[in-house]
Amino acid sequence: MRERHFISRIMAMAGQGGHPLVSQGIGDDCAVFSQRPLHDSLITTDMLVEGAHFDCRWHPPYSLGKKALTVSVSDIAAMGGRAEFALLSVALPSRLDDGWIADFIAGFTGKLAAERVILIGGDTTAGDRLVISVTVLGSASQGKAIKRAGARPGDGIYITGHLGLAAAGLHLCQRRRFKFDDVAVAPWPHLVQALLDPAAQSAMGRLLADLGGVSAMQDVSDGVATDLAHICQASQVAADIFANRLTPHPELGMYCHLVGLDPILLQLRGGEDYQLVFTMPPAKETELSRACASQGLPEPKRIGLIREGEGVWLLQEDGATEEITFQGYEHH
Amino acid sequence: MRERHFISRIMAMAGQGGHPLVSQGIGDDCAVFSQRPLHDSLITTDMLVEGAHFDCRWHPPYSLGKKALTVSVSDIAAMGGRAEFALLSVALPSRLDDGWIADFIAGFTGKLAAERVILIGGDTTAGDRLVISVTVLGSASQGKAIKRAGARPGDGIYITGHLGLAAAGLHLCQRRRFKFDDVAVAPWPHLVQALLDPAAQSAMGRLLADLGGVSAMQDVSDGVATDLAHICQASQVAADIFANRLTPHPELGMYCHLVGLDPILLQLRGGEDYQLVFTMPPAKETELSRACASQGLPEPKRIGLIREGEGVWLLQEDGATEEITFQGYEHH
Repeated sequence: MRERHFISRIMAMAGQGGHPLVSQGIGDDCAVFSQRPLHDSLITTDMLVEGAHFDCRWHPPYSLGKKALTVSVSDIAAMGGRAEFALLSVALPSRLDDGWIADFIAGFTGKLAAERVILIGGDTTAGDRLVISVTVLGSASQGKAIKRAGARPGDGIYITGHLGLAAAGLHLCQRRRFKFDDVAVAPWPHLVQALLDPAAQSAMGRLLADLGGVSAMQDVSDGVATDLAHICQASQVAADIFANRLTPHPELGMYCHLVGLDPILLQLRGGEDYQLVFTMPPAKETELSRACASQGLPEPKRIGLIREGEGVWLLQEDGATEEITFQGYEHH
Repeated sequence: MRERHFISRIMAMAGQGGHPLVSQGIGDDCAVFSQRPLHDSLITTDMLVEGAHFDCRWHPPYSLGKKALTVSVSDIAAMGGRAEFALLSVALPSRLDDGWIADFIAGFTGKLAAERVILIGGDTTAGDRLVISVTVLGSASQGKAIKRAGARPGDGIYITGHLGLAAAGLHLCQRRRFKFDDVAVAPWPHLVQALLDPAAQSAMGRLLADLGGVSAMQDVSDGVATDLAHICQASQVAADIFANRLTPHPELGMYCHLVGLDPILLQLRGGEDYQLVFTMPPAKETELSRACASQGLPEPKRIGLIREGEGVWLLQEDGATEEITFQGYEHH
């Protein structure tokens, strides 16, 4: 039976070796685990629906499997936590053949290994649309999880990497209708990879939690104009973003120039980059630089400032201001 | 926006009061919680897909909301645990109107309150089929969760209530195509309720864990012939079920007589009853009776015996035996 096959295959690929915190993994009514001593537990869940969140016409199953885990691991990173355990539920349409399923499982379990996450449960069922529901459990040192509330006037606003690439990648795929084999040789590797195979900022999330002083954080899943608006709302502050700090990734700049898109808008509104946006007193910048250098991680970039007030605002060099609160991309 | 409306409505209905173990509920990248001291954590997840697991033509949204939680709470009960926290993800087709959604949320949150479970997260998205994914976290005293492995030759096999009612209810609904309003006045109240609005055996699960001596347990979701086969496989034993112990619920007996179904088969193969099946040395029966009486719970019934060997077997009064291993109902 198809669902049994899925389960036995993913169990074989994920490995079911012992873990000191897990006393029962897959294979009972529930998984049984213990909390890491002196840590809080984190939990997050995401549901990805074919057509709404991904398109099997251009999303290779291997990278879709990776991304399905990445999306939730990114939420753990956004609290400064460490992802520990995952549960994967899927509704599988009959049109997906065994090769597709094997690739999806290989991608998902490959990412499990890369993130050192253990699969402890899930559910499989038939369905006429592919639906993927992932739950990830993680841990953070007691009381140290970084929340959305906490940004203070005077804090800088930082991002951990380039924005807008995934949105440009989606624009590209929707126009070009890539076949699977095209992906590897796509002429816009960074855009396509940002969309199809993004990385969670796991190491950076933990570095920022260990650093101390980060006052609020979240991952960029709905576009920074929306994600930062959540921080502002929770923290009861306003955010000013400086347009001249939004230097696009060279590939994004080139693509936007060619197809006539605005790279600033894409960076503000484009979702699914899975970079982190956080706030921190600028006085911590030197310490942050040193920590990043010592771990070989790229330095986050300041793109704005927190002030009293409400909303998210874009400031142009000529002094023009525009409100962009919650103007991110709505993919659901 | 539809998904935002769902989230704000369910947050209002579920209540977001403080909980000593939860330091961050809905409204951040992750929920943050602590484990109950001296307890293990349990986690389970179920995905329910329209068409495969339920049918909106006869399933009223209020009871569907209740059942969506019950299915996972039942897994916690089957470990002898206490359900604590839930995450609810839904893909919502546009054809479901606001009234339907309000009723679904009322049912889900009503069951949350009844089971004393706190909603700490989830995800909502658009979809063309209704898909519901529920994750429930629970706790059990350290090392006391009751697993599938552990049944020993000589143990009795017990069930906590009547079997086969949900399967008969499904048979009935599929033939009658109930309209929603018919459900309350259905002429087969126990069959219809078993299917549309089952209860998890939460109090009984905890009683059995506290009693001690229960060697293996699981909930009856796929039919006892399958669910018991899981216990036998994990415990490396065989199970004999005595046909003459499978007294059908009077309503089941009557329905089967009328429509020409075999009540024994329905009890063995019918899924979704969410009763518990467990194994225990018969010497504990008096103690179990007393514990049930003191809590006003119906006494579990012995339907068979564990012996050395493998598989699940049905023994007729005339001495005929038949293997029924994994012959439960396959709904996915």
